[in-house]
Amino acid sequence: MAKITGNLASKVGLPPGTLLHVGDMRADKAHIRVIHYNEDSLAEYDDVNIASLAQLTAEPGVTWIQVRGLTAQSVEGIGRQFAIHPLVLEDILHTNQRPKFSDYGDYLAVILKSLVVTAGTIDYNSEQVSLILGPNYVISFLESLPEDNDVLHNVYERVKSRRGKIARLGADYLLYALVDSLVDHYFLALEHLGEKIETLEEQIAARPRPELLGELHALKQDMLFMRKSVWPVRELVSALERGESALIQETTLIYLRDIYDHIVQVIETVEIYRDMLSGMLDIYLSSVSNRMSEVMKMLTIISTIFIPLTFIAGVYGMNFDYMPELRWQYGYPLILAVMLIMSLLMLRYFQKRKWL
Amino acid sequence: MAKITGNLASKVGLPPGTLLHVGDMRADKAHIRVIHYNEDSLAEYDDVNIASLAQLTAEPGVTWIQVRGLTAQSVEGIGRQFAIHPLVLEDILHTNQRPKFSDYGDYLAVILKSLVVTAGTIDYNSEQVSLILGPNYVISFLESLPEDNDVLHNVYERVKSRRGKIARLGADYLLYALVDSLVDHYFLALEHLGEKIETLEEQIAARPRPELLGELHALKQDMLFMRKSVWPVRELVSALERGESALIQETTLIYLRDIYDHIVQVIETVEIYRDMLSGMLDIYLSSVSNRMSEVMKMLTIISTIFIPLTFIAGVYGMNFDYMPELRWQYGYPLILAVMLIMSLLMLRYFQKRKWL
Amino acid sequence: MAKITGNLASKVGLPPGTLLHVGDMRADKAHIRVIHYNEDSLAEYDDVNIASLAQLTAEPGVTWIQVRGLTAQSVEGIGRQFAIHPLVLEDILHTNQRPKFSDYGDYLAVILKSLVVTAGTIDYNSEQVSLILGPNYVISFLESLPEDNDVLHNVYERVKSRRGKIARLGADYLLYALVDSLVDHYFLALEHLGEKIETLEEQIAARPRPELLGELHALKQDMLFMRKSVWPVRELVSALERGESALIQETTLIYLRDIYDHIVQVIETVEIYRDMLSGMLDIYLSSVSNRMSEVMKMLTIISTIFIPLTFIAGVYGMNFDYMPELRWQYGYPLILAVMLIMSLLMLRYFQKRKWL
Amino acid sequence: MAKITGNLASKVGLPPGTLLHVGDMRADKAHIRVIHYNEDSLAEYDDVNIASLAQLTAEPGVTWIQVRGLTAQSVEGIGRQFAIHPLVLEDILHTNQRPKFSDYGDYLAVILKSLVVTAGTIDYNSEQVSLILGPNYVISFLESLPEDNDVLHNVYERVKSRRGKIARLGADYLLYALVDSLVDHYFLALEHLGEKIETLEEQIAARPRPELLGELHALKQDMLFMRKSVWPVRELVSALERGESALIQETTLIYLRDIYDHIVQVIETVEIYRDMLSGMLDIYLSSVSNRMSEVMKMLTIISTIFIPLTFIAGVYGMNFDYMPELRWQYGYPLILAVMLIMSLLMLRYFQKRKWL
Amino acid sequence: MAKITGNLASKVGLPPGTLLHVGDMRADKAHIRVIHYNEDSLAEYDDVNIASLAQLTAEPGVTWIQVRGLTAQSVEGIGRQFAIHPLVLEDILHTNQRPKFSDYGDYLAVILKSLVVTAGTIDYNSEQVSLILGPNYVISFLESLPEDNDVLHNVYERVKSRRGKIARLGADYLLYALVDSLVDHYFLALEHLGEKIETLEEQIAARPRPELLGELHALKQDMLFMRKSVWPVRELVSALERGESALIQETTLIYLRDIYDHIVQVIETVEIYRDMLSGMLDIYLSSVSNRMSEVMKMLTIISTIFIPLTFIAGVYGMNFDYMPELRWQYGYPLILAVMLIMSLLMLRYFQKRKWL
Repeated sequence: MAKITGNLASKVGLPPGTLLHVGDMRADKAHIRVIHYNEDSLAEYDDVNIASLAQLTAEPGVTWIQVRGLTAQSVEGIGRQFAIHPLVLEDILHTNQRPKFSDYGDYLAVILKSLVVTAGTIDYNSEQVSLILGPNYVISFLESLPEDNDVLHNVYERVKSRRGKIARLGADYLLYALVDSLVDHYFLALEHLGEKIETLEEQIAARPRPELLGELHALKQDMLFMRKSVWPVRELVSALERGESALIQETTLIYLRDIYDHIVQVIETVEIYRDMLSGMLDIYLSSVSNRMSEVMKMLTIISTIFIPLTFIAGVYGMNFDYMPELRWQYGYPLILAVMLIMSLLMLRYFQKRKWL
Repeated sequence: MAKITGNLASKVGLPPGTLLHVGDMRADKAHIRVIHYNEDSLAEYDDVNIASLAQLTAEPGVTWIQVRGLTAQSVEGIGRQFAIHPLVLEDILHTNQRPKFSDYGDYLAVILKSLVVTAGTIDYNSEQVSLILGPNYVISFLESLPEDNDVLHNVYERVKSRRGKIARLGADYLLYALVDSLVDHYFLALEHLGEKIETLEEQIAARPRPELLGELHALKQDMLFMRKSVWPVRELVSALERGESALIQETTLIYLRDIYDHIVQVIETVEIYRDMLSGMLDIYLSSVSNRMSEVMKMLTIISTIFIPLTFIAGVYGMNFDYMPELRWQYGYPLILAVMLIMSLLMLRYFQKRKWL
Repeated sequence: MAKITGNLASKVGLPPGTLLHVGDMRADKAHIRVIHYNEDSLAEYDDVNIASLAQLTAEPGVTWIQVRGLTAQSVEGIGRQFAIHPLVLEDILHTNQRPKFSDYGDYLAVILKSLVVTAGTIDYNSEQVSLILGPNYVISFLESLPEDNDVLHNVYERVKSRRGKIARLGADYLLYALVDSLVDHYFLALEHLGEKIETLEEQIAARPRPELLGELHALKQDMLFMRKSVWPVRELVSALERGESALIQETTLIYLRDIYDHIVQVIETVEIYRDMLSGMLDIYLSSVSNRMSEVMKMLTIISTIFIPLTFIAGVYGMNFDYMPELRWQYGYPLILAVMLIMSLLMLRYFQKRKWL
Repeated sequence: MAKITGNLASKVGLPPGTLLHVGDMRADKAHIRVIHYNEDSLAEYDDVNIASLAQLTAEPGVTWIQVRGLTAQSVEGIGRQFAIHPLVLEDILHTNQRPKFSDYGDYLAVILKSLVVTAGTIDYNSEQVSLILGPNYVISFLESLPEDNDVLHNVYERVKSRRGKIARLGADYLLYALVDSLVDHYFLALEHLGEKIETLEEQIAARPRPELLGELHALKQDMLFMRKSVWPVRELVSALERGESALIQETTLIYLRDIYDHIVQVIETVEIYRDMLSGMLDIYLSSVSNRMSEVMKMLTIISTIFIPLTFIAGVYGMNFDYMPELRWQYGYPLILAVMLIMSLLMLRYFQKRKWL
Repeated sequence: MAKITGNLASKVGLPPGTLLHVGDMRADKAHIRVIHYNEDSLAEYDDVNIASLAQLTAEPGVTWIQVRGLTAQSVEGIGRQFAIHPLVLEDILHTNQRPKFSDYGDYLAVILKSLVVTAGTIDYNSEQVSLILGPNYVISFLESLPEDNDVLHNVYERVKSRRGKIARLGADYLLYALVDSLVDHYFLALEHLGEKIETLEEQIAARPRPELLGELHALKQDMLFMRKSVWPVRELVSALERGESALIQETTLIYLRDIYDHIVQVIETVEIYRDMLSGMLDIYLSSVSNRMSEVMKMLTIISTIFIPLTFIAGVYGMNFDYMPELRWQYGYPLILAVMLIMSLLMLRYFQKRKWL
């Protein structure tokens, strides 16, 4: 459960805006790479010093500052360079942050989670991606260092290869491309869950076992987390796309609306999956109760046939001195015949009541 | 499940606006037919070249460009001719698109699904129909080639026969007629489901069998998909009907409002069906538990009567040397009488407790 | 189920505005009666010719045109006389229409259902009542001919007897009076259902029988239909009462608000009834499971007491040559005493566990 | 159920505004008392004639007209004196009215229910209190005559004793004080229900008996009625407090906001109680099923141990001529030993499966 | 339950604004401490007399008046000094108040609850904290005296140590810091509940015992109270943060928005926990029914195998004179063999039906 609330409690009592890394520490130093590009040229600077960042953004073109590895020191340094509000810096460092968008006029802050599927499980808290959009720059903060697998890598590739319109358009389009790339990963996670649900549905239909119930509940919880992860992204994109910030141009709004549609599709699919899982639980429970009812019928049929027969056998096993039937020559076959007829009548009755 | 998310994942990582056919490929080349009509005349051109489309729409009257079979090349070509935004073209090619309406000022884009009932099952992803409304033209994109059964055929017939007011009115009325024709198919699908529910209800009332539960759940899922299909159409028509586009005339708005009412009726009926299916599940489960309870009563009555009797028989089957009753002359009929009286008392008790 | 969707499917493919009677045909010709009244006088014309209607409404005062029996021909004729939009005429003829209000500026169209309780069942599709309000006239369309029982009859009586303020006020008040009269019938239907629920509740409390479950589910479905019938009326009255039409005077708005309150009361009562029925289902199910549990306890007590005793009897029924107890003089009474003590201990145990 | 819909049906067919007492008649004549007060003086007139009311309100100061006992005649007379709309008078007489607020410009009409707890049950329709606020007067209508217990009595006392600010402030504050006094009674009713729930919870925890289920469902229905009673009061107070009427002064609005907060607290508590009752039903049902499961285990353990033993005894009770075991000297103790070992093994097995 | 409604009933009948302490009395006299600070200096006055408060706030800088221990007298005195509305004073004294925000123009009143976790249980009514924000002062009312543990202590420390920006900013920032400190405690409570849920989930997965059900329901009720506590705080912060009061500066609004985000995170987490608890209840119930079904199978298998065998033994225990089988030399081993084969066949059948 700790993964839901994070360890926010550790911050209780500190003044707000205190820069303290909250969450799992994934790196002990920050690595900064800067890509500066416009329609004509592209320059890449590695291991950039924080002090020289302001100078780089002064030149015309788009500057993408990639920060990998969160340390209080580097986040604070960059914050000072770009005059970013302490609360934003705090949010960047709190890696258990709820996805969030805030408009500070001069810059926008977007904080998101990447949903990564690793070895068949979805890590709903995998990595917090914080993006700052200024007039001509985007700063992206990742928790992990470059050697780790990078959710923003394909955008980096597109910028470098100068494919598509990304090189021609401004910093707002770069922000869009980064958010879009993260949202695309939600589809991957959803497809992964969809496949699991499909497999489970077939297994339950084939033979309901108690173990499957555990899987079903695990998937239900996955849906809870998925919904919790996606809803704030919807609000976030909706706020971005409402187009109230001067930092985002009209032409980019159309693209943001497209992300919004994707998020709505993800949410609707999550809701459908939830309904399907509920339906599967119903199927599971009623097939369990069907089997139970079968077992009970078996018991009832056997008992109902043999208990009266055993009683009759018991009667003729009594040791009374005067029991005339016991002396009849055909007493034994007669009583066997009576027993046979009784059981046949019983079976007939069961058949009529559709128990067989 | 793959049918819900589509294979959107295959697009992950590509720049937005990349024209790549996503979904099942139903045709490998596009076939274009153009119908140009006004109040007085009608001309039909088959197998039209993309390059000559612009010229055809230049003349007064309404131009209906029917594109059948989606290829990236043809969609891109038409897009270039009519200056259509790459995102719209992308949506047209992604045949797992959520129904969607977008207003680009000069033209409107409407993307819908046709719900077709084939051989007793509803194909919720059957065919994506994309419609572009320009000032005096409508472009319709269908996935399949002409030889296939065509959901827009009856509108085509009406235009050709010049029946009704379709020939007298503009391109916006043509768009309305096409959307209306698609929505009419939703009623057909719903009526089909309604009949299935009616049949199932009678079967469950007659005799609840476990197989019916499977059918019931299948219908519940059908309702989930139906709802998922229809809700976005409601938003779409609502957006169209709000009348904010200059491309749609006042007189056509009344007709769009009529479609909106139809969609609301479909949605309400889906909700009623869902509630009815829940009620049927309750009936099923309680009649199963009723039968179970009957079975248990049977078992209890038989056991409760015969177990004590068998015990008595057992007692007089014991081989003690000194058991005076065994020596009595009327011991045997006496004990039989005691047993009879006991069972009659038991039956009386069961009757009083209303178990019989 | 066909009663929910109606046979709307039969219209699929026809151009909108096609006047075709959809639904059960209740009359093969229309009968038109006109009542023309003002504060001072009242005139009634029977079997009026459609062509002369326009002339009648030209005179000052309120004209109420009562059309009974729907035929495509008469509806079209009246529509032409009063310049009514083809879609409205289509809605009047489709007697499976959802309740609906549309404002066409010069006239308002209101389409409603009358809920009539006949012989203990509610006909949720009984009769469609269509009302057109013009500046100084109301046209009412009923499906059935005059000889049938008439839901608008009491308004007719009030107009004729010139009781109340109906004679002094305009056509908008007449419209209000007609809608109010229909809504009053919803109360009658609801009261009817309320009585059924009350009876059922008593029966379930007295003795839960499986048949009652069927009745309970039938009432639940009644509530579904009731809600489906009443919700659109709420929207309709709400739209009327918002007072945006110049055809409705300020003084009439207060009366419409009153209808609105009534409809809200109907809806709230329907919701309460739904909750009560759910509660009754819970009571039914738990009293069934209580009885089941009683039956099981009975079985368990009998079995638990007699199975061990029967075993002991069985032991002393064995035919071993050397069984010293069998030779004891008081073996038999001793073993009977042991059995008695055992059963008393068992009963004590059951009492302690509160099973008895 | 009749108590939900009232007997509104009896009014069906009458013209709206017909003054007819609907509901239980509690008094056959009206008693009118007038209190006229301002900051300096207070005068009280008993058994006032309706004709002289207008004259009393003409003087400066606040006039509180207390009408006790509803008769069509008196309500109509007062209505004529103060030019009150017939619909309001109708609502006053219909004592099954939903709580309701209407603003007629010159005067406001507030219709409420008093919730009175009598002898441990809550009467949800106990008494309708209708209040009319004019520029300098409040008319209060109660159903019952003065000798009955009076829900407005404490306000009357406050006015007479000139305690608090009620004497200094206007008629709008008097209206507030009356509504506040009624809302306070809702808290009393709620507290009463809260105590019942608490008692029930303890009883269910101690020992779940079927009778408690009946009580639980009765409390659930109480909550349904409570919610039905309180929700419209919330709308009512919200409409009052929105401050759109010139009759209510700014200073009084703060007090109305306070009532609104109280109502919200009542509603929230009702929702909590509903959730708690659902939880208690769950606890009840699962403890019933726990007991059932215990009973079943008992049966299974006894049967599973003794049925095989009884079988063995049965085998050695067979009368075959050649059964060598029967001749062994230690056959009997041996077989008893076998039986003992078998039952011990069984008990061991049950212990391992945690059934004991 | 009394803890939900509080003893508000005790106030019924009193005029509003009556200053009467409602709730548990925690202190019989008030202790007032004043901290006066600005960017440069800080002064602290202990045991301040109410009459001298006005004078202290007259000087420039921020004045924080800490009132500990609620008495009608002191609250009234302070109210008179700062011209605070009687309803606010009433709310401060009613310590069962719902969290509430009111804007009186000159000052804002904020009433909150501190959620304190003591010895493993959460006290949802622990302490009411009332805050009044004036132009340059904050008055905080706590129920308990200084020697008690103080939820506002860390803010006091920060002010005194002049850490962070609290000393540089105005009274509105002090209000923010106090509310933030209280909201932080909600996270602690939530984390506490999260740990309990985690433990319970593991226990239920390991072995479902009836005792766990009680814990589960206790946690469900905790969630109900938590939600009831947090929702009004959300409205409160939302109203504060809407920025309509001139008392709150633009720069502080950003911080209030941050609290709002925290509250939303708390609410979402509560909802997730509720869903998780429902899922756990499902798991519990189905594992109970799984065990039950296992028990039933055991019973059925044993009975079904041995009842027929016992019957056969019974048959050959009958005492008929002419039973040829009894005379056969190999009758006994033969019948044993038949019994063995029968049980093997039975076991085979059970295996085929997957009961073993």
